[in-house]
Amino acid sequence: MEVLEAIKGRRSVRSFEDRPVEKEVLVLLMEAGVWAPSGGNAQTWRFVLVTDKETLRKIKMVSPGLLGRPPAVIVICQDVKEALQKGGTMGSETLTKMDSAMCAQNIMLTAHSLDLGTCVIASFHPKAVQELLSLPAETVPQLLVSVGYPKRVPSAPKRKTEGIYFFEEYHG
Amino acid sequence: MEVLEAIKGRRSVRSFEDRPVEKEVLVLLMEAGVWAPSGGNAQTWRFVLVTDKETLRKIKMVSPGLLGRPPAVIVICQDVKEALQKGGTMGSETLTKMDSAMCAQNIMLTAHSLDLGTCVIASFHPKAVQELLSLPAETVPQLLVSVGYPKRVPSAPKRKTEGIYFFEEYHG
Repeated sequence: MEVLEAIKGRRSVRSFEDRPVEKEVLVLLMEAGVWAPSGGNAQTWRFVLVTDKETLRKIKMVSPGLLGRPPAVIVICQDVKEALQKGGTMGSETLTKMDSAMCAQNIMLTAHSLDLGTCVIASFHPKAVQELLSLPAETVPQLLVSVGYPKRVPSAPKRKTEGIYFFEEYHG
Repeated sequence: MEVLEAIKGRRSVRSFEDRPVEKEVLVLLMEAGVWAPSGGNAQTWRFVLVTDKETLRKIKMVSPGLLGRPPAVIVICQDVKEALQKGGTMGSETLTKMDSAMCAQNIMLTAHSLDLGTCVIASFHPKAVQELLSLPAETVPQLLVSVGYPKRVPSAPKRKTEGIYFFEEYHG
């Protein structure tokens, strides 16, 4: 699938078929993630791939943003201790979020090009997810990406076009 | 260009040819940006496209991360006041950063598919850029994306593979 076609065709999918996604494909998605740039090439991202139904059920309970029943969730984490060492508070507080998000976008575009549906989720309780996945204190979940074969694909929310683009400088 | 080919082939370009990029192409890049998801569909991003050489020179002076002499810089901003209204402090402090980053990744992948080079830059002085572009207080620059025809394309930094991927739960 062409890049721009994938970018425009990707939807946030929140309704999934009840069938698993091949593990090799899920690994491919995480590998696509790490081809994102990272601030100062820090690469402090960590991933937990969750497909176990009981763990997914528990994650869902602490994640208001996780809708539907995806057969897989990729938990994008950051080693905030390493990020702090490498990039100071800019690294641990800002770049970790940005790197995770660019990584998530790679995952979602690749998934869409393989006819999979995804949704990126920031609304969850990081500490609870951390505990559920036995993550050490410094490995902090930043984003969840649900992955599955879409049951329903919503239409695209209309993109704002007014007052969004400025040329050379702001014109209020 | 195929999605995964673009994801793996994109480099952070910091050396550009001295020739302009067509305005229509730069607008297309910004439009690709807004096809990223945004937290709660907030779409609080704002863009300033800068191609004026004198403005670029001034931005470069306050942006340690901006290397080379790109003929264009897309300044990705966020209306943090609107983001706060829509998503509380989670919106204004976290989702703005993540949305900007997913947007930047779309811009960079699309640019790469058009044989353009880009670099995403977080190391700059937001207030100075804000002033240079006459941005109102609530419209805060989050990321710069330099765009141009690449003069030199660096090789890919080796991606970490050890201790990055975990399955079902963390194993220290």
